[in-house]
Amino acid sequence: MTYNLAIIGFGTVGQGFAELLQEKRESLKNTYGLEFEVVAISDPIKGSIYENAGVNLKEILTLVKKEGKIDGYAGGIKGWDSIKTIEETNADIIAEATPTNLESGEPGLTHIRTALKRGKHVITTNKGPIALFYRELAQLAKDRGKSLGFEGTVLSGTPAINLSLLTLAGTNISEIIGIMNGTTNYILTQMDAGKDYSEALREAQRLGYAETKPDADVEGWDALAKIVILSNVLMGANLKVSDVEREGITGITPSNIKDAKGEHKRYKLIARAWKENGKVKAKVSPEKVDDGNILFHISGVGNAIQFKTDILGRVTIVGPGAGKRETGFALLNDLISIHRTPMGMKGV
Amino acid sequence: MTYNLAIIGFGTVGQGFAELLQEKRESLKNTYGLEFEVVAISDPIKGSIYENAGVNLKEILTLVKKEGKIDGYAGGIKGWDSIKTIEETNADIIAEATPTNLESGEPGLTHIRTALKRGKHVITTNKGPIALFYRELAQLAKDRGKSLGFEGTVLSGTPAINLSLLTLAGTNISEIIGIMNGTTNYILTQMDAGKDYSEALREAQRLGYAETKPDADVEGWDALAKIVILSNVLMGANLKVSDVEREGITGITPSNIKDAKGEHKRYKLIARAWKENGKVKAKVSPEKVDDGNILFHISGVGNAIQFKTDILGRVTIVGPGAGKRETGFALLNDLISIHRTPMGMKGV
Repeated sequence: MTYNLAIIGFGTVGQGFAELLQEKRESLKNTYGLEFEVVAISDPIKGSIYENAGVNLKEILTLVKKEGKIDGYAGGIKGWDSIKTIEETNADIIAEATPTNLESGEPGLTHIRTALKRGKHVITTNKGPIALFYRELAQLAKDRGKSLGFEGTVLSGTPAINLSLLTLAGTNISEIIGIMNGTTNYILTQMDAGKDYSEALREAQRLGYAETKPDADVEGWDALAKIVILSNVLMGANLKVSDVEREGITGITPSNIKDAKGEHKRYKLIARAWKENGKVKAKVSPEKVDDGNILFHISGVGNAIQFKTDILGRVTIVGPGAGKRETGFALLNDLISIHRTPMGMKGV
Repeated sequence: MTYNLAIIGFGTVGQGFAELLQEKRESLKNTYGLEFEVVAISDPIKGSIYENAGVNLKEILTLVKKEGKIDGYAGGIKGWDSIKTIEETNADIIAEATPTNLESGEPGLTHIRTALKRGKHVITTNKGPIALFYRELAQLAKDRGKSLGFEGTVLSGTPAINLSLLTLAGTNISEIIGIMNGTTNYILTQMDAGKDYSEALREAQRLGYAETKPDADVEGWDALAKIVILSNVLMGANLKVSDVEREGITGITPSNIKDAKGEHKRYKLIARAWKENGKVKAKVSPEKVDDGNILFHISGVGNAIQFKTDILGRVTIVGPGAGKRETGFALLNDLISIHRTPMGMKGV
């Protein structure tokens, strides 16, 4: 089976995905019988190409690395915007990798809606549309018999969503607890080693773990988007971003850290969802985690999620939470899932 | 879709599976559109029933709990042995849950071969046939377009096999390291707390974690079967049980434990597989694990497996390694997988 892909958003994640596609072309064919062409790429800054027989991915990747743009590509139709690319190219799978916006979900929301309405499968790493409009988008995909893959919205390619949807299928999840943001875990790990908050933040910024304006991470917004997604997808909730109590790590002091140590505990920014009187609740806040819990031992930019299930008790997955290849991989794995269950995943 | 199941082997695991089927009947139907009848159960001790319209599972479970046998069931054909049950009933999925034999693989091997040759899907928790004859059985399943599910052979229902086959699909696994036997991990945890080996073993036996004749666990055979399965299934190896170096934990002394502590390490029975000069090698032995590794922190009967991948780096799954419901769940999850990809899993 050969798929035509369009990549919408060609920043770090889109490029990471393209690199993996290029690198894994042969093994995808040999292992899964999965073949593909990237027929279109559209990005408001890097430029847009449409070539219905498929672009030369290697050339495109060299070009964007060298020039920061893909406009210099020889051949293909140039200049189509994202919507025209989704609507008018021969792509049958749309890989949506534009930046997250947790207020409107745009532009990803319109991209995903448009693609599904046109009868195309969607794979995305964009937290905004999934955190804000999961129910609507999942229903739209179901109605059209298409897949909506979004593994990369939580813990990059570390299987958080598919772990539960596939390998834990049949269990009932009553609680989810996790360290879902690497930046804040790095800062807290540094504080545990003796730094104060602003020193640790500067260190994280120097290493590229934290943005110049670090609010999305340190105020807990990123973790909040993830716990909303997990609650709605895996626990049947219908939470809004505004339903979730949120506290970041900016108020944690060296004296808090010291007190926790005295109790053999460590502060972690914990995102949790649980059932209370038949309803799913969620919150994000710094919690003192006991050294008997694996989460205590997740240091630096590491991420981990624990699922409390009715049959297996606690199952924990530990892996990377971010990264170009790691997030690009989530799109690749979602693509393989579509190939394996072409009519959309039953029961998802 | 309605499936007819036959359960071959009605000990702890077979009963655990039957209990979960009974408990989850409604949710399997509502969530996945998966319906089933258990048309046959065959066990050399508990007895055998065949009822082509499906047995009353609740009655059977009450009966086996009360009388230790199912012969008293009203209705159905009694007394068919496992082979006749596999060959002549209207079951289209065979759940094989007979005891593991790591020398011949029997009787599970013949059960699985017979079932696949008859064009039936197989789901099993039996380590013997999979550790010894994976290549042959997988090929047989492929040739007949049937599924062979065996999640329960490694870490009970904790997703070890399917995690890699499904959610890590697309990555290349270069190394697998894990604590894959709860009994030995319990004993080592107790020794770490000050007991000597024989005290710790007696404690494990008292709690039902260790057998009266504990060799399969403490000599490393159980972990060995698991690492052979993981190597062959996930790393493309073709290892035999006899290819794997094996050392159990019976030689570990309190003084070893003390020395390890001095280095901030802990002894763990580690099963590992890795690539060396293009070949996959595996071994099972007690190793001193550093406190920077999550495996250091897996205590008691806990199990964990780390996969080293080309794209995601290390991904670790932590969960239960044994148990009636936990192992029964593996069969349930394999059943759901068959339902989702009815023609056998592509690329597996």
